[in-house]
Amino acid sequence: MNLQRDTTIAAPATGIGGAIGIIRVSGPGTFKMVDSLFFPAGDREILSASGYTVHFGSIRKGDEFIDEVLLTLFRAPASYTGEDSAEISHHASPYIQHRIMELLIDLGVKPAMPGEFTRRAFMNGRMDLSQAEAVADLIAADSAASHRLAATQLRGGFSEGIEKLRKELITFASLIELELDFSEEDVQFADRFAMTETVIKIKKMVDRLISSFRLGNAIRKGIPVVIAGRPNVGKSSLLNILLEEERAIVSDIPGTTRDTVEEVLHVEGLLFRFIDTAGLRQGGDEIEELGMERTLNKLKAAEIVLAVTEATDSAGEISDFAASVSEMTGNTEARIILIINKSDLITRNIASSLKKELEGLCPFPVLFVSAKYSDGFDALKKQLTASVETGRLDNPQYIVTNARHYDALRNVSESLQRVLDGFRDGIPTVLIATDVRQAIYYLGLITGKILPEDILGEIFARFCIGK
Amino acid sequence: MNLQRDTTIAAPATGIGGAIGIIRVSGPGTFKMVDSLFFPAGDREILSASGYTVHFGSIRKGDEFIDEVLLTLFRAPASYTGEDSAEISHHASPYIQHRIMELLIDLGVKPAMPGEFTRRAFMNGRMDLSQAEAVADLIAADSAASHRLAATQLRGGFSEGIEKLRKELITFASLIELELDFSEEDVQFADRFAMTETVIKIKKMVDRLISSFRLGNAIRKGIPVVIAGRPNVGKSSLLNILLEEERAIVSDIPGTTRDTVEEVLHVEGLLFRFIDTAGLRQGGDEIEELGMERTLNKLKAAEIVLAVTEATDSAGEISDFAASVSEMTGNTEARIILIINKSDLITRNIASSLKKELEGLCPFPVLFVSAKYSDGFDALKKQLTASVETGRLDNPQYIVTNARHYDALRNVSESLQRVLDGFRDGIPTVLIATDVRQAIYYLGLITGKILPEDILGEIFARFCIGK
Repeated sequence: MNLQRDTTIAAPATGIGGAIGIIRVSGPGTFKMVDSLFFPAGDREILSASGYTVHFGSIRKGDEFIDEVLLTLFRAPASYTGEDSAEISHHASPYIQHRIMELLIDLGVKPAMPGEFTRRAFMNGRMDLSQAEAVADLIAADSAASHRLAATQLRGGFSEGIEKLRKELITFASLIELELDFSEEDVQFADRFAMTETVIKIKKMVDRLISSFRLGNAIRKGIPVVIAGRPNVGKSSLLNILLEEERAIVSDIPGTTRDTVEEVLHVEGLLFRFIDTAGLRQGGDEIEELGMERTLNKLKAAEIVLAVTEATDSAGEISDFAASVSEMTGNTEARIILIINKSDLITRNIASSLKKELEGLCPFPVLFVSAKYSDGFDALKKQLTASVETGRLDNPQYIVTNARHYDALRNVSESLQRVLDGFRDGIPTVLIATDVRQAIYYLGLITGKILPEDILGEIFARFCIGK
Repeated sequence: MNLQRDTTIAAPATGIGGAIGIIRVSGPGTFKMVDSLFFPAGDREILSASGYTVHFGSIRKGDEFIDEVLLTLFRAPASYTGEDSAEISHHASPYIQHRIMELLIDLGVKPAMPGEFTRRAFMNGRMDLSQAEAVADLIAADSAASHRLAATQLRGGFSEGIEKLRKELITFASLIELELDFSEEDVQFADRFAMTETVIKIKKMVDRLISSFRLGNAIRKGIPVVIAGRPNVGKSSLLNILLEEERAIVSDIPGTTRDTVEEVLHVEGLLFRFIDTAGLRQGGDEIEELGMERTLNKLKAAEIVLAVTEATDSAGEISDFAASVSEMTGNTEARIILIINKSDLITRNIASSLKKELEGLCPFPVLFVSAKYSDGFDALKKQLTASVETGRLDNPQYIVTNARHYDALRNVSESLQRVLDGFRDGIPTVLIATDVRQAIYYLGLITGKILPEDILGEIFARFCIGK
């Protein structure tokens, strides 16, 4: 990526189609370059115009008329990038977009790389790194929950939490370093016990963030719900009913369709990703090797498992099945919901006693549904959202959604663990100080206080052009 | 379509994807509605803000933060629609777009119908009808030539030509009507001969416009070039070489790919649409009924025909073939270019004398090419653009591109013909006056001076949403 900040960059910032297209320009040459292409309809001067003004006029090159446009100007540093910037709002024809870009390039503008505008915003101190990353997440967000996480991060909520931790660690480090300065004298200024308490407290907060990643990532990508059950128990009908009722809502939001065989569904602002399994033999017998492995992998990755059985099964059969599913998930964080389909085949009385019996046999919520009569699906949806720790969403600043942040936090946690081990084993302070500094380093990576160049390149390559 | 101009409308105006999305709002409630959603970052008041100003802030609903946006305000009548308007520039997430639209609708905004913004611009006198139509054409334009025609029309160049004709006819009509007022006295104020001259002059201009439609329409949709020749003469290689050389340029402009089996190619700002035929038997013998019919239809619709033969054919064979193709086109306006492929099989001397011989035998330009060695293709491209009446493009205001305009002009021409017939046959002036009024009526339809409601509905339904 071109890092010369004295260059002026431009790129189309809008998608394909539509009525309006926008070309974004940023850099020191913006005003001069735009001025030579843009002919205002009035007699307002562009070169001397102040920021946050809009101008109507045309883009021309000699006799060639290209388009009537609206030109919005921004003066450094009050712009997205922190540089002089312009937005050319033109009729959304590919030809016009192409021609304006050509003219700008003729004037010396460089086509912007993906994310280069946001990268400049970061380099110019308009936002920190985790905020910059939130821009890409915000654009990709397609559910209320994922939107909320990205919006919180964009507004700096997440960075604040990280900065708070980092400051506590810096204070802590200064205590340790103080000791080092006097290490010849072999004194221990700080109370080791109090220090350990502080590190434990910070590490607990870091670990809570780490564990939030599972939820945060699930919310961003869709919460994986695996539907398990033996063949013909009604898994597909279940899925179809769930999807059919909500399809109107899904298709109402353009762009939610994905290139995946998994079906997605919005329920109360959460995106669920349903994964159908080929069918499990009850009790775990007669399972072929390959299918079993695939199913096991899906179960292990599940956040929620819908264990589907039939109302005509006995309580014992049902609870045995639930237990085997639970064992197969191998993951204590997956919530299992026991779905008893074909409730239309039994009386309300029998259902009631079966439910009571099951509640004694297994710890999972039990729901009766009838795919045939579309009964019980509202309760199922309620149970789905209840199974997500939505309470944690009340503090979205403490939810990690980004794999890079997750990795950094894991490094922080490991460093802090080494600090604790060091205290316990009486390791020399100088070594402990190294681990503390490492923890600070990794926290700094998240907000970009510390900045290896290769990380930057990776982050902004994920962006779309024009952002 | 909702015609209440007291409603406030909104629609996303940008395509899918990209970094920035724009929601357009227009109507009397714009400022009040936007003010209740938008929270400026500074303390600038929205309600009292002047037009052509940009404001940074956020869209919120109670505690819910939706996005950081740029809000551009326009005051009536200085806006696209001529009404109070706003553009909300948000992060291009479908979720955000959907949510902002929802909030606007909750406030009483009506989702805009396709073309409703431009329709309001027309209703409020911001542009005439042919200019409004040009907006849709401009957005769809994908070659320099089609862009130029639409841009000329948008800027009123075409309307001016039509208005000039209409005014001449109105002057003429007033002379006729004057005669009618005194018809009791059976006087003829105007000189019948001079009148006939005037009508002939106007009709000639109308007819020139009518005949320009073939070119105008071809430029808008791509100029149809049919490749004809007997099997194995090298038609496909010819097409592939033409396309391959230019493909980089074509794919450089996003959105040019079409859902058609026909291949398109830009040459010097013109879009050519190549139509391969199954292969013609030389001399017209042995042609099956069905294939013949299809080929004939393609030839009849062609603007240019590449008649492909081989260098090893005799001059007589080649000119016979050219004559049969010419006959099959049945359309005097199609330009035929005689392509002699496999020029690598003969010497330059033989080629030279063959060419001379052919020039004596048939009136078409003769080009030697070698698909095998990619020879002669620059000359072919030059011949292609030369075969289009590009000279007429110098006066794009006299080119009709729109089928609705074409129909209206044909009605004008027919009415004027009836006027001429009337003069010749001594028809009563009152009947002639009716025909003149009809001609005026049809010209008025083009610019929207005369306005049946159903025509409006049809025109704006062609638009995209948000325009």
